[in-house]
Amino acid sequence: MKKKIDLNNLISGKNIRKLIDKLYPICRSITGKGFKDSLKILKENMDIKMVKFRTGTKVLDWTIPKEWNIKDAFIIDPSGKKIVDFKKNNLHIVNYSMPINKRISLAELKKKIFTLPKLPNAIPYIASYYKKDWGFCIEYKKYKNLKKGNYKVFIDSTLKNGELVYSDTKIPGKSKKEILLSTYLCHPQMANHELGGPIVLSMLYKILKTTGPHKYTYRFLICPENIGSAAFLHKNKKKLKNIIAGYVINCVGHGSEITYKKSRISDSLSDKAALNVIKNSGKKFIIEDFYPWGSDEKQFCSPGFNLPIGLIMRTRFDKFKEYHTSLDNKNFISIKTLIDSIKIYYQVLKTIEIDFKPLGKIQYGTPQLSRSKVPLYRTTMNWKIKKIDSRIKNILQILNLADGKKSLIDIANKKKIKLINQENLIDDLLKSGYVTKK
Amino acid sequence: MKKKIDLNNLISGKNIRKLIDKLYPICRSITGKGFKDSLKILKENMDIKMVKFRTGTKVLDWTIPKEWNIKDAFIIDPSGKKIVDFKKNNLHIVNYSMPINKRISLAELKKKIFTLPKLPNAIPYIASYYKKDWGFCIEYKKYKNLKKGNYKVFIDSTLKNGELVYSDTKIPGKSKKEILLSTYLCHPQMANHELGGPIVLSMLYKILKTTGPHKYTYRFLICPENIGSAAFLHKNKKKLKNIIAGYVINCVGHGSEITYKKSRISDSLSDKAALNVIKNSGKKFIIEDFYPWGSDEKQFCSPGFNLPIGLIMRTRFDKFKEYHTSLDNKNFISIKTLIDSIKIYYQVLKTIEIDFKPLGKIQYGTPQLSRSKVPLYRTTMNWKIKKIDSRIKNILQILNLADGKKSLIDIANKKKIKLINQENLIDDLLKSGYVTKK
Amino acid sequence: MKKKIDLNNLISGKNIRKLIDKLYPICRSITGKGFKDSLKILKENMDIKMVKFRTGTKVLDWTIPKEWNIKDAFIIDPSGKKIVDFKKNNLHIVNYSMPINKRISLAELKKKIFTLPKLPNAIPYIASYYKKDWGFCIEYKKYKNLKKGNYKVFIDSTLKNGELVYSDTKIPGKSKKEILLSTYLCHPQMANHELGGPIVLSMLYKILKTTGPHKYTYRFLICPENIGSAAFLHKNKKKLKNIIAGYVINCVGHGSEITYKKSRISDSLSDKAALNVIKNSGKKFIIEDFYPWGSDEKQFCSPGFNLPIGLIMRTRFDKFKEYHTSLDNKNFISIKTLIDSIKIYYQVLKTIEIDFKPLGKIQYGTPQLSRSKVPLYRTTMNWKIKKIDSRIKNILQILNLADGKKSLIDIANKKKIKLINQENLIDDLLKSGYVTKK
Repeated sequence: MKKKIDLNNLISGKNIRKLIDKLYPICRSITGKGFKDSLKILKENMDIKMVKFRTGTKVLDWTIPKEWNIKDAFIIDPSGKKIVDFKKNNLHIVNYSMPINKRISLAELKKKIFTLPKLPNAIPYIASYYKKDWGFCIEYKKYKNLKKGNYKVFIDSTLKNGELVYSDTKIPGKSKKEILLSTYLCHPQMANHELGGPIVLSMLYKILKTTGPHKYTYRFLICPENIGSAAFLHKNKKKLKNIIAGYVINCVGHGSEITYKKSRISDSLSDKAALNVIKNSGKKFIIEDFYPWGSDEKQFCSPGFNLPIGLIMRTRFDKFKEYHTSLDNKNFISIKTLIDSIKIYYQVLKTIEIDFKPLGKIQYGTPQLSRSKVPLYRTTMNWKIKKIDSRIKNILQILNLADGKKSLIDIANKKKIKLINQENLIDDLLKSGYVTKK
Repeated sequence: MKKKIDLNNLISGKNIRKLIDKLYPICRSITGKGFKDSLKILKENMDIKMVKFRTGTKVLDWTIPKEWNIKDAFIIDPSGKKIVDFKKNNLHIVNYSMPINKRISLAELKKKIFTLPKLPNAIPYIASYYKKDWGFCIEYKKYKNLKKGNYKVFIDSTLKNGELVYSDTKIPGKSKKEILLSTYLCHPQMANHELGGPIVLSMLYKILKTTGPHKYTYRFLICPENIGSAAFLHKNKKKLKNIIAGYVINCVGHGSEITYKKSRISDSLSDKAALNVIKNSGKKFIIEDFYPWGSDEKQFCSPGFNLPIGLIMRTRFDKFKEYHTSLDNKNFISIKTLIDSIKIYYQVLKTIEIDFKPLGKIQYGTPQLSRSKVPLYRTTMNWKIKKIDSRIKNILQILNLADGKKSLIDIANKKKIKLINQENLIDDLLKSGYVTKK
Repeated sequence: MKKKIDLNNLISGKNIRKLIDKLYPICRSITGKGFKDSLKILKENMDIKMVKFRTGTKVLDWTIPKEWNIKDAFIIDPSGKKIVDFKKNNLHIVNYSMPINKRISLAELKKKIFTLPKLPNAIPYIASYYKKDWGFCIEYKKYKNLKKGNYKVFIDSTLKNGELVYSDTKIPGKSKKEILLSTYLCHPQMANHELGGPIVLSMLYKILKTTGPHKYTYRFLICPENIGSAAFLHKNKKKLKNIIAGYVINCVGHGSEITYKKSRISDSLSDKAALNVIKNSGKKFIIEDFYPWGSDEKQFCSPGFNLPIGLIMRTRFDKFKEYHTSLDNKNFISIKTLIDSIKIYYQVLKTIEIDFKPLGKIQYGTPQLSRSKVPLYRTTMNWKIKKIDSRIKNILQILNLADGKKSLIDIANKKKIKLINQENLIDDLLKSGYVTKK
């Protein structure tokens, strides 16, 4: 990660806005054309390598479902008016709905409609992957005004044997040890959750590709949520020991605070590196212990795998009312926040990259740093004129703890130092020979 | 503990009031008729099995004292008036007083009288088991007005070789592992301390007898305080390893708060189960580390035995001014609080009964709970319509930690779940096969 | 430490004041006559044993510098007036200045002058041990008014091959195990920092010499800071394992609060004993984790040595503005605070002396303390008349934890007992036989 790059150029707001515009209207699901089309759009920014699973394949405790595709859907009211139209907003259809084409009474229709009385202008997002069903999601305001009579309900969908795909790409590093970045791409027409995740992940890909070669191998996973990560884990069961850290990326486009959800391990490298950046960020932050609901961390952090996977989020999914509704639209997501999230993730990855276990050259007594050719200390004892500065304090702290057993991240967390701010200092310590990598 | 019972019927306030009325007036001590008569009264509610120790027997560092009995005692003032009468309140006599019958001056008398100047209407409770002596305890108000002249002091007591008894009864369970419930019954004419203890213990006996068979064997000990538990420990020295949890029951009839005094081990099964109930009770509570004064826990938790014995109390003995005085009378004790204490203890015992180390069937990835025949999860992804409820959260927490190493109590304490509220959920998890007992 | 002594007589304020008067005006440095003369003055109170190192000797990562001596120094202004005079205040010269004798312009002069604009009346203290240089330190007020013209600068110093000395003295105890008391004596004309350190150390020597024989051997080190302790450690590298506790003494003459800086080990015997005294002192205190700047603890607590050395200070060096300036003068130091600091150190040393691992005679059940010939418990059960007092509570706590594995200091810290207040109680426990030393 030595190459200096202009992050702001690489990840311009304009590009991000374009990506959102392309991805937002697509009706995605855990299988089908919408998911694949979305991967193709991301391909403009990063490598995509599809892995396929046939319908009916067992993955861990799950089974790959039939493939779902949809062309159109609507409801026509008794007066002949198309009152619900999939083409206007694809949240109107319960995701994975079976095909239907019939006339039903208002009473029957109401059984197949989901609304949000507390958000009368919002269309809820509902899915029914594993129970065969069909239904519509509409604004409560519209629902309240439905008139008596017969309605035509029409869904032009297919549910057939087919395939489920996810994308699994690597940027190889000097080491086989991997850092896993994972996100999902199975939600229809919503912006912050989930488009923020894939966008941040693709931008991190771009940055890491531009700045390599890196110490670690980076692996980028874009799945349908839950079933996709289960398929990945099933396929790679025996190769997971290389994963030393990683994050599931979601809820990264709205909210000023940083929310960190720890891995189940609770003090994994992922946790330590994220906390080093977040706690020293000057931003409002919330640290949460692991809990086994949420997203793909449920799979990664199941007791058998227990992978070191955490989540760096902004406002958490269940803390904003727009979550899983049509109100999570293009106006709800903030480009500025997305860029900020990319930078935070990049800082965390850099933290992991520059980490090592330092061994001090002088273990007995202090080194006489004033003799160093690389300037590390002052030559005159003039405390009162110039107080001991934080650079010198950090040098002394690192040297005092450089016993070859503690990592720089552990030292930095113990002493409340933001590690990436010490890159030059660490370089100087290495160059001067006062510290070597253990 | 499967059988459903009507607790309120089993432990009616009326019965408790009757018990108090019978036990309250008796002059008990660590030996003698008063103690044995009191055990007989408790026999109406529970099994009593007396264990006897002859005077002079060595038990641990202690020696069984002579047996003390008393028929009458009084003081007659210079005018011939009986001003202190054992038959009106047996606290008037220093417990274990030697017999006496003589006339003495006021000055001499005063040396043998105990009063409480700060509680001028209270008779203090004093005992002198191991130092041969005699004396009277009277209200300070009365003491202040004693006139000059000669007083007749009369104590019709005996102190002879005899026996000390305690009661040791078991309700056998499926396992030889025991839960010890211990209380003491050596205090004269006082209500909250100590009658509350034996009453709660006898009611717990009744409940457990009605609801068995249980997983664990329950042992009920009713001792003279200190010397009695020393005798029990001496006799059973080599059989104590079966005791996996237990409590000393006292100070359970006054005060709204719950006071938990930990065992010396500090994180024993007793401590974990009690804290799970108490911390999730919604009541005010105080948690105390172990200290080696108080009651029989001094013996049980001496370094050599170090048994897992805690105390669930209400207001602690040294926090109410009526303690060890005649003010701790039948009006001072609350039937409602006693019943509440019984329920708390019963909840704690149930917590221990339902505990086991769960092993999840699916260790790798999450189980697909929507397929379960026993309903464990929702079938539709409709987060926004119906938020993830606490039942599902608890299922997921337990499954995520069900590695066969952690107990349910440990999981519940870690995740702040009240375990006895999850009985049905745990049954469902077992029935569905997603969890087995390790 | 059995002998009772009158501390106030032994360490009178008058004697301390005399010592300060003698030591204060001397121009000390890390080598040279000033340091040796100062040691000689301390010799009035304690043994001094000089250890010598020749210039050029390697000690750890350091090299013994040339010996510096100075006779006179001054600046004469363009009008012929001696405006800066070493003989008036030897802080005026940059410590370790090379000799000089020439006329220079005001502009040139200004490059060689150090001032403190924020303390315009203070002369700063500056040293340049390892970079050959010369300079003057003056009041900013004077500096501002320097007029144009040529100045004569004169420094009559020598920098030659010679020696560095420190003093290393022992008071042998019954055990070879050592407690190290270390201070430094290389600062010129300043009072609190550093004369307080050597004065407190010499008084502790006097007290310990008067009160012996002690359990432990006491070692008294008076060094030039940093290079001196490096030389000591270098020379004694293989004999340090005897040091079981110790303190660097500085900043002990100003400030009401107690500041404790922990050893790098963080829970060493030094830390435990100091905290037992400080936390139970009733005084305001500040506890600090170790950090590798400050004084000789940098050397003692380098990772290779990692000695159990802490610091009991009053106001810390960087928290009073007079530090390293002429304002740290004889008025700034408080004799009362010095005496208080001596007493605190003495209490801490006594705490270490009386510590041992107690083993209770009765491990199973409680001992029947009322039988003890040495009075340990009351004979009558009269709780209400006389509450259980803190002496009895402390006896019970110690006995309950006296398993032969925990030290008295650990027990005392756990139970918030000030150990030196329990000397009689511990004697009684030993005499009664209820406790033996493990």
